[in-house]
Amino acid sequence: MPDQTGPNPTAAMLVIGDEILSGRTRDANMHYLAGQLTEAGIDLKEVRIVSDDHDGIVEALNGLRGTWDTVFTSGGIGPTHDDITADAVAAAFAVNVDVRDDARTLLAAHYAKTGSKLNAARLRMARIPDGATLIDNPVSVAPGFTIGNVHVMAGVPKVFQAMVATVLPTLTGGAPLLSTSTRIDRGEGDIAEPLGALAKEYTDLSVGSYPFQKDGKFGTNIVIRGQDRTRLDMATAKLATLFE
Amino acid sequence: MPDQTGPNPTAAMLVIGDEILSGRTRDANMHYLAGQLTEAGIDLKEVRIVSDDHDGIVEALNGLRGTWDTVFTSGGIGPTHDDITADAVAAAFAVNVDVRDDARTLLAAHYAKTGSKLNAARLRMARIPDGATLIDNPVSVAPGFTIGNVHVMAGVPKVFQAMVATVLPTLTGGAPLLSTSTRIDRGEGDIAEPLGALAKEYTDLSVGSYPFQKDGKFGTNIVIRGQDRTRLDMATAKLATLFE
Repeated sequence: MPDQTGPNPTAAMLVIGDEILSGRTRDANMHYLAGQLTEAGIDLKEVRIVSDDHDGIVEALNGLRGTWDTVFTSGGIGPTHDDITADAVAAAFAVNVDVRDDARTLLAAHYAKTGSKLNAARLRMARIPDGATLIDNPVSVAPGFTIGNVHVMAGVPKVFQAMVATVLPTLTGGAPLLSTSTRIDRGEGDIAEPLGALAKEYTDLSVGSYPFQKDGKFGTNIVIRGQDRTRLDMATAKLATLFE
Repeated sequence: MPDQTGPNPTAAMLVIGDEILSGRTRDANMHYLAGQLTEAGIDLKEVRIVSDDHDGIVEALNGLRGTWDTVFTSGGIGPTHDDITADAVAAAFAVNVDVRDDARTLLAAHYAKTGSKLNAARLRMARIPDGATLIDNPVSVAPGFTIGNVHVMAGVPKVFQAMVATVLPTLTGGAPLLSTSTRIDRGEGDIAEPLGALAKEYTDLSVGSYPFQKDGKFGTNIVIRGQDRTRLDMATAKLATLFE
């Protein structure tokens, strides 16, 4: 069981779909959500990416929702045959799933306005697990939904971002995570010992070390993160003195 | 348990480190590995991203290595206090881990040449679990390692890519996954039903539907994937006739 101590609420993300696993698409939603959660003071602790496979989705979702405070999913809630997220989420929660009137009404009004037909495929997007509440989709109407501690959202980045904007204010965040970044033009091996001592001195902060190589030279970005501005500034000032 | 049928070997990736979860860095290694595996005919089936937490790494690694044929990890094998991957991998396999002579010899030769000191921090990079074999690092010498079906590699993209180049030819791949991509200027809801029928007709292929929105219009990219060029071309030709 991963460490769950620390003052902030925790979150996980489940990305559903083959496009990232096949290398076709480079992730955007995870990167977006990670930034939004950090600002909100919610710690993203784990991400899983699984393919369009019913049992795989159920297993991953049950693993994540039992471990972390909140889970966000992206992908697989459209109208096509490979959109199986709603059914898998219902299975994970052992509840029924069917076309629901509130979601159907939203879709019917939208397609009446745009002159498209609410055909059987589009009606699949009104399949909502029992007990879920809808998440507004201001971009293309077909809703996401929240069930228990799980927020089920679209994979299309514009829609995903709109849904995050709806959900995030409903969550209780912690103190926003503050950070400083210090570039040190030495390799990690040169600075690891004093850096480790600094991390031991400031156990309330996290001290991350990110090596890079540019123009044949080694360097390290040190990112210190924490909720207390004063402590963060103290540690960052100390860091600056270590490698003058 | 996710579906493991299908002709190709399967793989998973475990990304270790806080930089992606905090939103500081956008993933590059996963995207790179996904593309390389697809070319090699190995199906990347699951990715997990966890933070620098010993128990979390052990649990995720044991979940993945028991489910999929091969597991690749990235990150956490440098010299700093937050580099705990070698110890966590050893714990997952229940073997001992310590500075090993073969790895120490590599590092000592390298630092002697560059005039740096093989200090205690750098020596941490010679900690290798018992029974593992080293993975060559032509960029910065500190090796990765292979133990059982797990390949432990660096997080720095240049080093990660060099290690993938070393490991991949040692794996038995399947037939490379071929794909076609067809852009259809209609929303998913308009094409979902004939598309579903196509997917049912060609069960040996995967038919993926990726909606997009551009300049206020909805469109869909249909990606058909499979190992048989003739079947792939047949299905793609059929697709073209569906939405003329």
